[in-house]
Amino acid sequence: MSEEPGFAGACVAVVGLGLMGGSLAGALAPRQACRQVVGVPRRPETLRTALERGWIHHGTTDLIEGTAQADVVVLATPPRVVLRQLREIGPHLQAGTLVMDLASTKAQVLRAMEGLPACVQPLGGHPMCGKEQAGIEAAQPDLFAGRPFILSPLPRTSAGALEQGKALVRAVGAVPVVLDAADHDRMVAWVSHLPHTVALSLMGAAMAGAQQDPGLWSLAASGFRDTTRLAASDPDMMLDIFLTNQENILRAMNVFREQFDKLYALIEAGDEAPLRECIEAASRRRRELNL
Amino acid sequence: MSEEPGFAGACVAVVGLGLMGGSLAGALAPRQACRQVVGVPRRPETLRTALERGWIHHGTTDLIEGTAQADVVVLATPPRVVLRQLREIGPHLQAGTLVMDLASTKAQVLRAMEGLPACVQPLGGHPMCGKEQAGIEAAQPDLFAGRPFILSPLPRTSAGALEQGKALVRAVGAVPVVLDAADHDRMVAWVSHLPHTVALSLMGAAMAGAQQDPGLWSLAASGFRDTTRLAASDPDMMLDIFLTNQENILRAMNVFREQFDKLYALIEAGDEAPLRECIEAASRRRRELNL
Repeated sequence: MSEEPGFAGACVAVVGLGLMGGSLAGALAPRQACRQVVGVPRRPETLRTALERGWIHHGTTDLIEGTAQADVVVLATPPRVVLRQLREIGPHLQAGTLVMDLASTKAQVLRAMEGLPACVQPLGGHPMCGKEQAGIEAAQPDLFAGRPFILSPLPRTSAGALEQGKALVRAVGAVPVVLDAADHDRMVAWVSHLPHTVALSLMGAAMAGAQQDPGLWSLAASGFRDTTRLAASDPDMMLDIFLTNQENILRAMNVFREQFDKLYALIEAGDEAPLRECIEAASRRRRELNL
Repeated sequence: MSEEPGFAGACVAVVGLGLMGGSLAGALAPRQACRQVVGVPRRPETLRTALERGWIHHGTTDLIEGTAQADVVVLATPPRVVLRQLREIGPHLQAGTLVMDLASTKAQVLRAMEGLPACVQPLGGHPMCGKEQAGIEAAQPDLFAGRPFILSPLPRTSAGALEQGKALVRAVGAVPVVLDAADHDRMVAWVSHLPHTVALSLMGAAMAGAQQDPGLWSLAASGFRDTTRLAASDPDMMLDIFLTNQENILRAMNVFREQFDKLYALIEAGDEAPLRECIEAASRRRRELNL
């Protein structure tokens, strides 16, 4: 890689062409945002699909072959796969290559990125978007449009590498937000990881209720649908999230339980004024949010 | 009212023209599903809006005046308002009038309906649809289309009255489901009332998290949006639900907490196999649901 190729001249290898990687490739190649997009999926079928859609210029299922010549490598795989792939690709990368990931937790990934050769530029990434479907069939090039895309540099990451990361983020239509990895993991525990635990537990509760009342599923309307939607997320992804951000998630779960127990006590007491106050505070704040 | 007018010949009074009542009137009058729709909102502005939209033929803000001549009265007000209005309208209704409600809980309403004059036909109702906005501005005539609409007859409700209730349900595009009030309240506690308590608690937890990290709101994506959507529901409605179905809601909350605590313990232990099993069971079931 030349000293400062700019993103437009870069060869970008996207490792993993599922929901995130597929969408990223699809947002880059068709609009010629960079010189070349190389796809590195796990399965040959995915490679064929990506080629047919024009989302990659060429590709391979061989991780080393696909990444060794790239100017930018984006690991679009689950957090714990990212940890392994960082170890595997490190020795084979070109000097100056920007290595990014898209994983939902950042602290562990950034610690692993510290182990990359000194000549490589690491940069953590996390686009704040998604849906419960997984795989290239669920991918869509506009997935990132207008969404925050977090970038977590390491102390060793050069200003130029961060700029190239921002250029990639802007090229897919997202808004770069630079955030320390520890801050990232603490904050997304509240707005993303905790909601996953809540959605899963709500499904578990309804499944228990359905043992007595199988007919309850037929009464489920849009409220149940939306509150439990995250439970349908990819189990591998949820597992990886829970195991790589335990401390923050457990703290958020404890605070949730305090809130839930408080509401329980108010309903049990049946005392209207404090119950109304509790409901109104949460309801007002939710309506203020521009989601 | 004549002996068996059929629904097409009926004068239907809709009391309350908010999300539910407005949508119901809007589904009846424009398609001439019955002879006449009389609107009985609380505020004159709502009356004007409903008239302008052609959702009612005429109306009044006077509860007795609006219901005394009706063949069918639909109380589309919150549960505890329904309880009061049943007492108020009872003595003034015509013999044979069908009196329905649309409230989210049924046992208390049906107990109050038992106090109606013997010449009146009571029938509990609950359409399984909704959205978090309230008021006639949020109403939409297709709100009920294809949705289950629960009908809970009392022992004294005649077969003819139940048939007329079903005809109304079909006229607004919904699917009648006859269900005992106690069964209704127990089942919707799982799929509707519990999700409200969870959404409110999740908002409460994120508000606590935001005291340390105000920036977390900017990271909230579609997952947080959907999981908390119900928290933005009308506080009066949520309060009424919580206070008229306490026992079932508290039981569902206890089961939810068991599920949540189990997930907490699995994440804390970091033992992959049982954590994966727990995630996959809920996730698989959620994907099977046709919501």
